[in-house]
Amino acid sequence: MDIIVDIGGCDTPEKMIGGALAAAKQHPDYRIVIVGDGALIEKYPDIGGAPNLFVENAPDVITNDDSPTHAIRQKPNSSLVKAIDILKNNDDAIGLVSGGSTGAVLTAATLLIGRMKGVLRPVLASPGMPTAVEGKALCVADCGANVDSKPEFLAQFALMASAYVKAVFGVANPTVGLLSVGTENKKGDERTKAAFELIKNLPLNFVGNMEARYALTGDYDVIISDGFAGNVLIKSIEGTAKMVMGQVKGAIKSSARSKLGALFMKKELKGLKSRMDYHVYGGAAFLGVNKLVVKTHGSSNEVSTAASINNIIKMYEHNLIDEINRAVTEYNTTLAAENA
Amino acid sequence: MDIIVDIGGCDTPEKMIGGALAAAKQHPDYRIVIVGDGALIEKYPDIGGAPNLFVENAPDVITNDDSPTHAIRQKPNSSLVKAIDILKNNDDAIGLVSGGSTGAVLTAATLLIGRMKGVLRPVLASPGMPTAVEGKALCVADCGANVDSKPEFLAQFALMASAYVKAVFGVANPTVGLLSVGTENKKGDERTKAAFELIKNLPLNFVGNMEARYALTGDYDVIISDGFAGNVLIKSIEGTAKMVMGQVKGAIKSSARSKLGALFMKKELKGLKSRMDYHVYGGAAFLGVNKLVVKTHGSSNEVSTAASINNIIKMYEHNLIDEINRAVTEYNTTLAAENA
Repeated sequence: MDIIVDIGGCDTPEKMIGGALAAAKQHPDYRIVIVGDGALIEKYPDIGGAPNLFVENAPDVITNDDSPTHAIRQKPNSSLVKAIDILKNNDDAIGLVSGGSTGAVLTAATLLIGRMKGVLRPVLASPGMPTAVEGKALCVADCGANVDSKPEFLAQFALMASAYVKAVFGVANPTVGLLSVGTENKKGDERTKAAFELIKNLPLNFVGNMEARYALTGDYDVIISDGFAGNVLIKSIEGTAKMVMGQVKGAIKSSARSKLGALFMKKELKGLKSRMDYHVYGGAAFLGVNKLVVKTHGSSNEVSTAASINNIIKMYEHNLIDEINRAVTEYNTTLAAENA
Repeated sequence: MDIIVDIGGCDTPEKMIGGALAAAKQHPDYRIVIVGDGALIEKYPDIGGAPNLFVENAPDVITNDDSPTHAIRQKPNSSLVKAIDILKNNDDAIGLVSGGSTGAVLTAATLLIGRMKGVLRPVLASPGMPTAVEGKALCVADCGANVDSKPEFLAQFALMASAYVKAVFGVANPTVGLLSVGTENKKGDERTKAAFELIKNLPLNFVGNMEARYALTGDYDVIISDGFAGNVLIKSIEGTAKMVMGQVKGAIKSSARSKLGALFMKKELKGLKSRMDYHVYGGAAFLGVNKLVVKTHGSSNEVSTAASINNIIKMYEHNLIDEINRAVTEYNTTLAAENA
């Protein structure tokens, strides 16, 4: 089976190449196809070191400044369009990892690969985020692909993200919370209140409304939201963690005494940094299209690229697309029967 | 002038009494009226120590479990209803600080004190939050009072919160950002895109759309949002800061060596803790009603209670209600002229 890695449009193509090479060595049963600037890829040290690593030259790039729908039509030689082309037309190609412009990746996946039958909107499921409980990661869906969602979209997001977390995080029965402004059933805006009524009837481990302040307690495997608030949630977690860690660093560096103190806790501070490192979780999964798609950060490193490829393999080996298809079809059938 | 302090319904009434007493001593020109359980208040040490501190007995309490609209009618002897009554019927009473149930405080203020003429929805402006820049605080409006807001509400929130931050944070020309999922003008859901078009024409230092990840950089004095996403923003900041600080503490305590190291940085860690302490900013201001209202945290301490009283005095001395009235009237007149 083939996994396509698009390195065009990201800030760190060499690191993505390194990650793809590492994943190729780790998974000799899969073929990894790097799509991007061939000259850059070919000069990467040890690029010939994995017989299952292939290169497709496509030096053209879609940037964040391009209009997504326009660019995917006007730039047929861009790495993204070429990568999607291989993914679509090759039966052995199971998934794509891309570090390109989020808008372009999601648009290309939706328009060129296509939504799964019965899926109202594909959902962007955030990368795992470290929580207060060691080994417990959090997934937020939708984390920015869909704004102005209807309540039925959120119900499908819950089904898709729960199946995803089972496959990739290895959680048997993921707890699903609905992002709101309070924990009571009736709290929230109109969308959330209507979504609550739909999600509570789904065959999921739904624990009800939840508040953003408890997102990282480890009590939730999946948080469901419209993409606007979901995006606010993941970005404020990112920004706040960065700000607080910056303040801690600043405090340590503010005097010779405290710098000395930090030497005594070098190991512990390193452990803390590694616990808080989100790269190990890979990128965000775009669920509900006909192939597996992972959008990695524009500044992905080797670890996050290899993790994203690993996530594609986990989704594939857990038949995630079939699982989503089954869950969505069952939901749509129930809904149609109720409305009949 | 009188400032009313409602200590009913909060978890820490003694601390609120202490804060009120401290504020009374600090501001001999103002009268502070504590409303709550008289027996509890009278036995507070040194309660007679400020001649400008008065006590109004109202031991009945509205809890978080009460329905706000129901409770303010059914519990006329509750501390909140009594406090609002004094505020409303006493011309010398300029403002209220309450630690009670948020829903009840906002409902009572809106129904019993009344919205200012021309104000579509009163807005809850978050307490100041510490940012990466020392001395720079952030205010989020709306932080939870209004969900399903119309774009025009957000435009008024921007006017009210900007005037508030001028008065209370002492910022001459506050930068106002609009919370969205990207920084480009056209990014966001339908509400945000429409609000952008309204806010850009206001006489404010509007810096455009902003992303939650940059909320704490110190680049923004005010962030405008519907109360759903605004609530998600402030609660995820709170939860993430708590989680990260918890991880830092955990790392420090994980070995004898690192505990020893922490001794060397005791002063710096204390400084960090004090920099991150939000109590100094007081509570959230409820703007757009006919008197000044500050809702403090249910677990307010002396510092945050005294700060909330200070904030009322700052708003009063900056004629905030007149300022808001002027800004909103001007906006409504312009809007009416455009639509004529």
